[in-house]
Amino acid sequence: MTTHQEISHPATFDLVAYLTERQPQIEAALDAAIRPGYPDTIYDAMRYSLLAGGKRLRPMLCLASCELIGGSLDSVMPMACALEMVHTMSLIHDDLPAMDDDDYRRGKLTNHKVYGEDIAILAGDGLLAYSFEYIATQTQGVSADRVLKAIAHLAKAVGANGLVGGQVVDLESEGKPDISVETLTYIHNHKTGALLKACVVCGAILAGATEAQLEKLSKFAHNIGLAFQIIDDILDITATQAELGKTAGKDIQAQKATYPKLWGLEESKRQADKLVAEAKAILAEFGDRARPLQALADYITDRKN
Amino acid sequence: MTTHQEISHPATFDLVAYLTERQPQIEAALDAAIRPGYPDTIYDAMRYSLLAGGKRLRPMLCLASCELIGGSLDSVMPMACALEMVHTMSLIHDDLPAMDDDDYRRGKLTNHKVYGEDIAILAGDGLLAYSFEYIATQTQGVSADRVLKAIAHLAKAVGANGLVGGQVVDLESEGKPDISVETLTYIHNHKTGALLKACVVCGAILAGATEAQLEKLSKFAHNIGLAFQIIDDILDITATQAELGKTAGKDIQAQKATYPKLWGLEESKRQADKLVAEAKAILAEFGDRARPLQALADYITDRKN
Repeated sequence: MTTHQEISHPATFDLVAYLTERQPQIEAALDAAIRPGYPDTIYDAMRYSLLAGGKRLRPMLCLASCELIGGSLDSVMPMACALEMVHTMSLIHDDLPAMDDDDYRRGKLTNHKVYGEDIAILAGDGLLAYSFEYIATQTQGVSADRVLKAIAHLAKAVGANGLVGGQVVDLESEGKPDISVETLTYIHNHKTGALLKACVVCGAILAGATEAQLEKLSKFAHNIGLAFQIIDDILDITATQAELGKTAGKDIQAQKATYPKLWGLEESKRQADKLVAEAKAILAEFGDRARPLQALADYITDRKN
Repeated sequence: MTTHQEISHPATFDLVAYLTERQPQIEAALDAAIRPGYPDTIYDAMRYSLLAGGKRLRPMLCLASCELIGGSLDSVMPMACALEMVHTMSLIHDDLPAMDDDDYRRGKLTNHKVYGEDIAILAGDGLLAYSFEYIATQTQGVSADRVLKAIAHLAKAVGANGLVGGQVVDLESEGKPDISVETLTYIHNHKTGALLKACVVCGAILAGATEAQLEKLSKFAHNIGLAFQIIDDILDITATQAELGKTAGKDIQAQKATYPKLWGLEESKRQADKLVAEAKAILAEFGDRARPLQALADYITDRKN
């Protein structure tokens, strides 16, 4: 049984109030999802990166998507937490010396700088495994069919056909400044886009969305995923290290292909805005219920870090 | 619907015939589970380690356990393949320079020696994610409830409360020759035992085992898991590199605590035999249906590599 929570949305949606309400709920849920335990090191390492703050954009998208279809926050919160666990795992592994070799993340030392490479690898593995355990055991008031479907979607978004595949092509493209826009788009659709899409889609699956609804939400998520990455590339050039909380200018140093490099800064910003406008329009038919997701789409292009 | 396949077991169970029948079925299922794809590198890397041979003990245990409860091979084969994917992922990550730093596995170069550390980390991540996708999407003729329960059990066996936790305590115990038998047992119950137990338990869950049956099978698996590790420690001392297909004598070099070091070779062998005898006795009430699992238990202690 789903406990249905209605939230009214006035004509001018107050995203700040919305985020201010949701953020502590998500933080508390994440903190409760993985408690300290034995062996201390691995639980500390997982919690260190999972609870390192951040915008919690993925859980937010998942909650807002579930809400749009009419599902309850309680029923989707374990899924939302699992998505943040998967995202955290991908950051921990991406930051490893054998990968992007980054020392800072969200203004803090990266996991392997604190706990060592071995524990960082295992912390990622532990978070990935636990994300599935958490969904499977903690989701309440949703049929097993739906939970299974959401698990399948999330797992695909993580694997070789999702973020792992995107990361591989990204690694292979490093030092090749002449890669095509198709390759760049492949990288981002998989490395960033697949998981963002999973957030929106899995939230809706748990709430019982129809295939037609899932398709619309999927298209919405595709657009904001790509816009998100374009903005990321722009920020790597225009933002300072203090704003980003991680090393700025990494892409240029690493000779990575980026959208601003292919299109220039202004055209990149225009493309991102266009993708977001399209995304918001796709959800128009859902009426006021779509306001949180639409506002989150704007938030993605307006962000400073 | 499960297509039920009856196999008759004569009084003297012919394990060689059983393994000879099952092995090619498992190999074919694994080969079909992950086909080559784009990006080539990651699919090649995953297939390189997944299809590197080995005894396929984990899928064998899963199939035999499902069969004992009366489930069909078809319904459990995706689970059996997923268990081998998870096992392969743990080997790839364990072999990394930041972990055990091993160059050979099953007589072949380890994954990172062939594909590089970055791809090896991602191949492990890809296999882990795919194992859950594969169970969730490919399991046929089993209720979603059961599939979800099996996924939860497998995920727990992999995470910080399972093989990841065991690996952490193992890493922390290196160079400490005076660790207790309790710590050593914790390591092995988690690093090796948890996944072996998941094989037996998940096969039985999919077949619809009762809680009482699961408890018996769990105890059986606990015993053979521990026996398996004791034999592994013994073989590290007594077997040659050619027999093992990996570097022999690694434990002594790494100053790892082992059962032979704690108990001596003879007592270690006696303990392993005792655990296996107990394990076989636990399954006695299942009659002839238990013969494959019982024979696999013997196989574990008699193996030469």
